[in-house]
Amino acid sequence: LFERGGYRATTIEAVAARSRVAKTTIYRRWPNRAALLVELLLQVVDADSPPTGPEPLRALRKDLRQVAEALEALPGRLVASLLSEAHHDPGIRVLLLEGLFDARRDARARLIQLAQQAGAIRRDVPPLLAADLLVGPLLYRKFVRQDTVTVRQAGQVFEAVLEGLATRPRGRR
Amino acid sequence: LFERGGYRATTIEAVAARSRVAKTTIYRRWPNRAALLVELLLQVVDADSPPTGPEPLRALRKDLRQVAEALEALPGRLVASLLSEAHHDPGIRVLLLEGLFDARRDARARLIQLAQQAGAIRRDVPPLLAADLLVGPLLYRKFVRQDTVTVRQAGQVFEAVLEGLATRPRGRR
Repeated sequence: LFERGGYRATTIEAVAARSRVAKTTIYRRWPNRAALLVELLLQVVDADSPPTGPEPLRALRKDLRQVAEALEALPGRLVASLLSEAHHDPGIRVLLLEGLFDARRDARARLIQLAQQAGAIRRDVPPLLAADLLVGPLLYRKFVRQDTVTVRQAGQVFEAVLEGLATRPRGRR
Repeated sequence: LFERGGYRATTIEAVAARSRVAKTTIYRRWPNRAALLVELLLQVVDADSPPTGPEPLRALRKDLRQVAEALEALPGRLVASLLSEAHHDPGIRVLLLEGLFDARRDARARLIQLAQQAGAIRRDVPPLLAADLLVGPLLYRKFVRQDTVTVRQAGQVFEAVLEGLATRPRGRR
Protein backbone atom coordinates (compact mmCIF):
# COMPACT_ATOMS: atom_id res chain seq x y z
CA LEU A 1 0.00 0.00 0.00
CA PHE A 2 2.76 2.44 0.92
CA GLU A 3 4.84 1.69 -2.16
CA ARG A 4 1.87 2.35 -4.42
CA GLY A 5 0.15 5.27 -2.73
CA GLY A 6 2.50 6.63 -0.08
CA TYR A 7 1.59 7.68 3.43
CA ARG A 8 -1.80 9.04 2.46
CA ALA A 9 -2.94 5.72 0.98
CA THR A 10 -1.69 3.65 3.90
CA THR A 11 -4.65 4.15 6.20
CA ILE A 12 -5.45 1.68 8.96
CA GLU A 13 -8.69 1.05 7.09
CA ALA A 14 -6.85 0.10 3.89
CA VAL A 15 -4.42 -2.08 5.84
CA ALA A 16 -7.35 -3.85 7.53
CA ALA A 17 -9.06 -4.46 4.18
CA ARG A 18 -5.91 -5.80 2.51
CA SER A 19 -4.88 -8.01 5.42
CA ARG A 20 -8.45 -9.12 6.25
CA VAL A 21 -7.85 -8.25 9.87
CA ALA A 22 -10.29 -6.20 11.95
CA LYS A 23 -9.30 -2.57 12.45
CA THR A 24 -9.66 -3.05 16.22
CA THR A 25 -7.08 -5.86 16.07
CA ILE A 26 -4.64 -3.57 14.28
CA TYR A 27 -5.27 -0.74 16.72
CA ARG A 28 -4.58 -3.12 19.61
CA ARG A 29 -0.99 -3.38 18.42
CA TRP A 30 -0.33 0.01 16.76
CA PRO A 31 -2.03 3.15 18.07
CA ASN A 32 -1.92 4.80 14.64
CA ARG A 33 -0.64 4.61 11.09
CA ALA A 34 2.66 6.28 11.95
CA ALA A 35 3.46 3.65 14.59
CA LEU A 36 2.66 0.91 12.06
CA LEU A 37 4.93 2.51 9.43
CA VAL A 38 7.76 3.01 11.92
CA GLU A 39 7.57 -0.73 12.68
CA LEU A 40 7.64 -1.49 8.96
CA LEU A 41 10.69 0.76 8.69
CA LEU A 42 12.43 -1.10 11.54
CA GLN A 43 11.74 -4.40 9.81
CA VAL A 44 13.27 -3.29 6.51
CA VAL A 45 16.37 -1.74 8.08
CA ASP A 46 18.34 -3.43 10.79
CA ALA A 47 18.17 -0.69 13.37
CA ASP A 48 20.96 -1.39 15.82
CA SER A 49 23.39 -3.46 13.83
CA PRO A 50 25.47 -1.51 11.35
CA PRO A 51 28.45 -3.40 9.86
CA THR A 52 31.14 -4.54 12.26
CA GLY A 53 34.48 -6.22 11.68
CA PRO A 54 38.11 -6.20 12.72
CA GLU A 55 38.71 -2.85 10.97
CA PRO A 56 36.39 -0.16 12.38
CA LEU A 57 37.19 2.38 9.61
CA ARG A 58 36.24 -0.15 6.97
CA ALA A 59 33.00 -0.91 8.85
CA LEU A 60 32.20 2.84 9.04
CA ARG A 61 32.79 3.25 5.34
CA LYS A 62 30.55 0.27 4.59
CA ASP A 63 27.89 1.64 6.94
CA LEU A 64 27.87 4.95 5.06
CA ARG A 65 27.51 3.19 1.71
CA GLN A 66 24.59 1.18 3.10
CA VAL A 67 22.97 4.39 4.33
CA ALA A 68 23.21 5.81 0.78
CA GLU A 69 21.59 2.66 -0.63
CA ALA A 70 18.80 2.67 1.97
CA LEU A 71 18.05 6.35 1.30
CA GLU A 72 17.16 5.53 -2.32
CA ALA A 73 15.01 2.51 -1.39
CA LEU A 74 11.92 1.82 0.75
CA PRO A 75 13.56 2.97 4.03
CA GLY A 76 14.34 6.38 2.52
CA ARG A 77 10.78 6.79 1.27
CA LEU A 78 9.33 5.76 4.64
CA VAL A 79 11.57 8.16 6.54
CA ALA A 80 10.74 11.03 4.16
CA SER A 81 7.01 10.49 4.72
CA LEU A 82 7.33 10.07 8.46
CA LEU A 83 9.51 13.21 8.76
CA SER A 84 6.89 15.21 6.91
CA GLU A 85 4.21 13.95 9.32
CA ALA A 86 6.49 14.40 12.33
CA HIS A 87 6.46 18.13 11.66
CA HIS A 88 2.80 18.14 12.72
CA ASP A 89 2.96 15.28 15.24
CA PRO A 90 5.85 15.24 17.74
CA GLY A 91 4.94 11.66 18.70
CA ILE A 92 6.13 10.45 15.29
CA ARG A 93 9.45 12.22 15.78
CA VAL A 94 9.90 10.39 19.11
CA LEU A 95 9.10 7.03 17.45
CA LEU A 96 11.68 7.73 14.72
CA LEU A 97 14.37 8.91 17.13
CA GLU A 98 13.87 6.10 19.65
CA GLY A 99 13.20 3.36 17.14
CA LEU A 100 15.80 4.12 14.48
CA PHE A 101 17.85 7.31 14.49
CA ASP A 102 19.33 7.09 17.99
CA ALA A 103 20.06 3.37 17.77
CA ARG A 104 21.95 3.83 14.49
CA ARG A 105 23.70 6.94 15.76
CA ASP A 106 24.84 5.19 18.95
CA ALA A 107 26.03 2.14 17.02
CA ARG A 108 28.00 4.43 14.70
CA ALA A 109 29.48 6.26 17.70
CA ARG A 110 30.62 2.90 19.12
CA LEU A 111 32.42 2.10 15.85
CA ILE A 112 34.06 5.52 16.05
CA GLN A 113 35.19 4.80 19.61
CA LEU A 114 36.73 1.53 18.41
CA ALA A 115 38.53 3.46 15.67
CA GLN A 116 39.74 5.95 18.29
CA GLN A 117 41.04 3.13 20.47
CA ALA A 118 42.80 1.66 17.41
CA GLY A 119 44.46 5.05 16.80
CA ALA A 120 42.75 5.64 13.45
CA ILE A 121 40.44 8.50 14.52
CA ARG A 122 41.41 11.54 16.61
CA ARG A 123 40.45 11.10 20.24
CA ASP A 124 39.61 14.78 20.74
CA VAL A 125 36.47 14.58 18.56
CA PRO A 126 33.31 13.46 20.45
CA PRO A 127 32.06 10.19 18.84
CA LEU A 128 28.49 11.47 18.35
CA LEU A 129 29.81 14.59 16.62
CA ALA A 130 31.95 12.43 14.35
CA ALA A 131 28.92 10.23 13.59
CA ASP A 132 26.89 13.31 12.57
CA LEU A 133 29.71 14.63 10.38
CA LEU A 134 29.66 11.38 8.39
CA VAL A 135 25.95 10.81 8.01
CA GLY A 136 24.71 14.43 8.19
CA PRO A 137 25.75 15.49 4.66
CA LEU A 138 23.95 12.47 3.13
CA LEU A 139 20.73 12.89 5.12
CA TYR A 140 20.78 16.62 4.42
CA ARG A 141 20.99 15.93 0.70
CA LYS A 142 18.17 13.40 0.85
CA PHE A 143 15.70 14.93 3.28
CA VAL A 144 16.41 18.68 3.13
CA ARG A 145 17.41 19.13 -0.52
CA GLN A 146 15.21 16.12 -1.40
CA ASP A 147 17.87 15.12 -3.86
CA THR A 148 19.18 11.68 -4.79
CA VAL A 149 22.17 10.23 -2.95
CA THR A 150 24.65 7.80 -4.49
CA VAL A 151 27.03 5.26 -3.03
CA ARG A 152 29.83 7.18 -4.75
CA GLN A 153 28.85 10.34 -2.84
CA ALA A 154 28.92 8.35 0.39
CA GLY A 155 32.51 7.36 -0.37
CA GLN A 156 33.43 10.98 -1.17
CA VAL A 157 31.91 12.20 2.08
CA PHE A 158 33.71 9.50 4.05
CA GLU A 159 37.13 10.29 2.59
CA ALA A 160 36.74 14.07 2.84
CA VAL A 161 35.52 13.95 6.46
CA LEU A 162 38.33 11.60 7.42
CA GLU A 163 41.01 13.71 5.74
CA GLY A 164 39.57 17.11 6.60
CA LEU A 165 39.39 20.17 4.39
CA ALA A 166 42.37 22.04 5.80
CA THR A 167 45.71 21.90 4.01
CA ARG A 168 47.59 21.94 7.31
CA PRO A 169 46.87 20.91 10.90
CA ARG A 170 44.92 23.49 12.89
CA GLY A 171 45.14 24.13 16.63
CA ARG A 172 41.97 23.20 18.51
CA ARG A 173 40.05 26.29 19.53
CA LEU B 1 0.10 34.79 11.35
CA PHE B 2 2.84 32.23 10.77
CA GLU B 3 4.53 32.90 14.08
CA ARG B 4 1.28 32.39 15.96
CA GLY B 5 -0.34 29.54 14.05
CA GLY B 6 2.27 28.08 11.72
CA TYR B 7 1.75 27.06 8.11
CA ARG B 8 -1.81 25.88 8.66
CA ALA B 9 -2.96 29.25 10.00
CA THR B 10 -1.26 31.25 7.26
CA THR B 11 -3.94 30.88 4.63
CA ILE B 12 -4.26 33.38 1.79
CA GLU B 13 -7.70 34.15 3.27
CA ALA B 14 -6.22 35.03 6.67
CA VAL B 15 -3.47 37.09 5.03
CA ALA B 16 -6.08 38.98 3.00
CA ALA B 17 -8.15 39.68 6.11
CA ARG B 18 -5.17 40.87 8.15
CA SER B 19 -3.70 43.02 5.40
CA ARG B 20 -7.07 44.33 4.16
CA VAL B 21 -6.05 43.41 0.63
CA ALA B 22 -8.31 41.47 -1.72
CA LYS B 23 -7.47 37.80 -2.12
CA THR B 24 -7.32 38.29 -5.89
CA THR B 25 -4.65 40.97 -5.41
CA ILE B 26 -2.56 38.56 -3.35
CA TYR B 27 -3.03 35.76 -5.87
CA ARG B 28 -1.88 38.11 -8.65
CA ARG B 29 1.55 38.19 -7.02
CA TRP B 30 1.82 34.78 -5.32
CA PRO B 31 0.15 31.71 -6.82
CA ASN B 32 -0.23 30.08 -3.41
CA ARG B 33 0.61 30.20 0.25
CA ALA B 34 3.92 28.38 -0.20
CA ALA B 35 5.16 30.95 -2.70
CA LEU B 36 4.18 33.73 -0.28
CA LEU B 37 6.02 32.04 2.59
CA VAL B 38 9.13 31.42 0.48
CA GLU B 39 9.20 35.15 -0.30
CA LEU B 40 8.84 35.92 3.41
CA LEU B 41 11.74 33.54 4.04
CA LEU B 42 13.88 35.31 1.44
CA GLN B 43 13.14 38.63 3.08
CA VAL B 44 14.20 37.47 6.54
CA VAL B 45 17.39 35.78 5.35
CA ASP B 46 19.77 37.35 2.90
CA ALA B 47 19.80 34.61 0.33
CA ASP B 48 22.87 35.18 -1.77
CA SER B 49 25.12 37.16 0.50
CA PRO B 50 26.78 35.14 3.22
CA PRO B 51 29.64 36.87 5.07
CA THR B 52 32.66 37.88 3.04
CA GLY B 53 35.97 39.41 4.04
CA PRO B 54 39.70 39.23 3.46
CA GLU B 55 39.95 35.87 5.26
CA PRO B 56 37.68 33.25 3.56
CA LEU B 57 38.03 30.70 6.39
CA ARG B 58 36.87 33.29 8.89
CA ALA B 59 33.94 34.17 6.63
CA LEU B 60 33.00 30.47 6.34
CA ARG B 61 33.10 30.05 10.09
CA LYS B 62 30.93 33.14 10.56
CA ASP B 63 28.51 31.87 7.89
CA LEU B 64 28.11 28.58 9.76
CA ARG B 65 27.42 30.37 13.03
CA GLN B 66 24.79 32.50 11.29
CA VAL B 67 23.20 29.36 9.87
CA ALA B 68 22.93 27.95 13.41
CA GLU B 69 21.29 31.16 14.63
CA ALA B 70 18.86 31.29 11.70
CA LEU B 71 17.86 27.65 12.26
CA GLU B 72 16.57 28.52 15.74
CA ALA B 73 14.67 31.62 14.57
CA LEU B 74 11.92 32.44 12.06
CA PRO B 75 13.89 31.21 9.00
CA GLY B 76 14.33 27.78 10.59
CA ARG B 77 10.61 27.53 11.39
CA LEU B 78 9.64 28.62 7.88
CA VAL B 79 12.00 26.11 6.26
CA ALA B 80 10.74 23.29 8.51
CA SER B 81 7.13 24.00 7.50
CA LEU B 82 7.94 24.38 3.83
CA LEU B 83 9.99 21.16 3.78
CA SER B 84 7.09 19.28 5.29
CA GLU B 85 4.78 20.65 2.56
CA ALA B 86 7.40 20.09 -0.15
CA HIS B 87 7.13 16.37 0.51
CA HIS B 88 3.62 16.52 -1.01
CA ASP B 89 4.23 19.37 -3.46
CA PRO B 90 7.40 19.28 -5.61
CA GLY B 91 6.78 22.89 -6.64
CA ILE B 92 7.58 24.05 -3.11
CA ARG B 93 10.86 22.13 -3.19
CA VAL B 94 11.80 23.93 -6.41
CA LEU B 95 10.96 27.32 -4.86
CA LEU B 96 13.14 26.51 -1.85
CA LEU B 97 16.04 25.21 -3.90
CA GLU B 98 16.00 28.04 -6.46
CA GLY B 99 15.14 30.80 -4.03
CA LEU B 100 17.34 29.94 -1.08
CA PHE B 101 19.25 26.64 -0.87
CA ASP B 102 21.16 26.78 -4.14
CA ALA B 103 22.04 30.47 -3.84
CA ARG B 104 23.48 29.92 -0.35
CA ARG B 105 25.24 26.74 -1.40
CA ASP B 106 26.84 28.43 -4.42
CA ALA B 107 27.92 31.43 -2.35
CA ARG B 108 29.47 29.07 0.19
CA ALA B 109 31.23 27.16 -2.59
CA ARG B 110 32.70 30.46 -3.86
CA LEU B 111 34.10 31.19 -0.39
CA ILE B 112 35.59 27.69 -0.39
CA GLN B 113 37.20 28.36 -3.78
CA LEU B 114 38.72 31.55 -2.39
CA ALA B 115 40.08 29.55 0.55
CA GLN B 116 41.49 26.99 -1.90
CA GLN B 117 43.18 29.76 -3.90
CA ALA B 118 44.60 31.15 -0.65
CA GLY B 119 46.01 27.69 0.14
CA ALA B 120 43.88 27.20 3.26
CA ILE B 121 41.60 24.43 1.91
CA ARG B 122 42.68 21.35 -0.08
CA ARG B 123 42.21 21.83 -3.78
CA ASP B 124 41.27 18.19 -4.40
CA VAL B 125 37.89 18.53 -2.62
CA PRO B 126 35.04 19.78 -4.87
CA PRO B 127 33.74 23.10 -3.42
CA LEU B 128 30.08 21.99 -3.39
CA LEU B 129 31.03 18.82 -1.51
CA ALA B 130 32.98 20.90 1.02
CA ALA B 131 29.97 23.22 1.40
CA ASP B 132 27.69 20.24 2.14
CA LEU B 133 30.15 18.80 4.67
CA LEU B 134 30.02 22.06 6.64
CA VAL B 135 26.32 22.80 6.57
CA GLY B 136 24.95 19.24 6.23
CA PRO B 137 25.49 18.15 9.85
CA LEU B 138 23.66 21.25 11.15
CA LEU B 139 20.69 20.98 8.78
CA TYR B 140 20.49 17.23 9.46
CA ARG B 141 20.26 17.94 13.20
CA LYS B 142 17.61 20.59 12.70
CA PHE B 143 15.37 19.17 9.98
CA VAL B 144 15.90 15.39 10.22
CA ARG B 145 16.44 14.89 13.94
CA GLN B 146 14.26 18.00 14.54
CA ASP B 147 16.64 18.90 17.33
CA THR B 148 17.98 22.28 18.44
CA VAL B 149 21.23 23.58 16.98
CA THR B 150 23.61 25.89 18.81
CA VAL B 151 26.27 28.34 17.67
CA ARG B 152 28.74 26.30 19.72
CA GLN B 153 27.88 23.18 17.70
CA ALA B 154 28.42 25.16 14.50
CA GLY B 155 31.94 25.97 15.71
CA GLN B 156 32.60 22.32 16.61
CA VAL B 157 31.42 21.14 13.19
CA PHE B 158 33.57 23.76 11.46
CA GLU B 159 36.75 22.82 13.32
CA ALA B 160 36.23 19.06 13.03
CA VAL B 161 35.46 19.21 9.28
CA LEU B 162 38.48 21.43 8.67
CA GLU B 163 40.83 19.21 10.66
CA GLY B 164 39.35 15.89 9.63
CA LEU B 165 38.75 12.84 11.79
CA ALA B 166 41.81 10.83 10.75
CA THR B 167 44.90 10.83 12.94
CA ARG B 168 47.17 10.71 9.90
CA PRO B 169 46.96 11.74 6.25
CA ARG B 170 45.14 9.24 4.01
CA GLY B 171 45.76 8.61 0.34
CA ARG B 172 42.86 9.66 -1.92
CA ARG B 173 40.96 6.64 -3.17
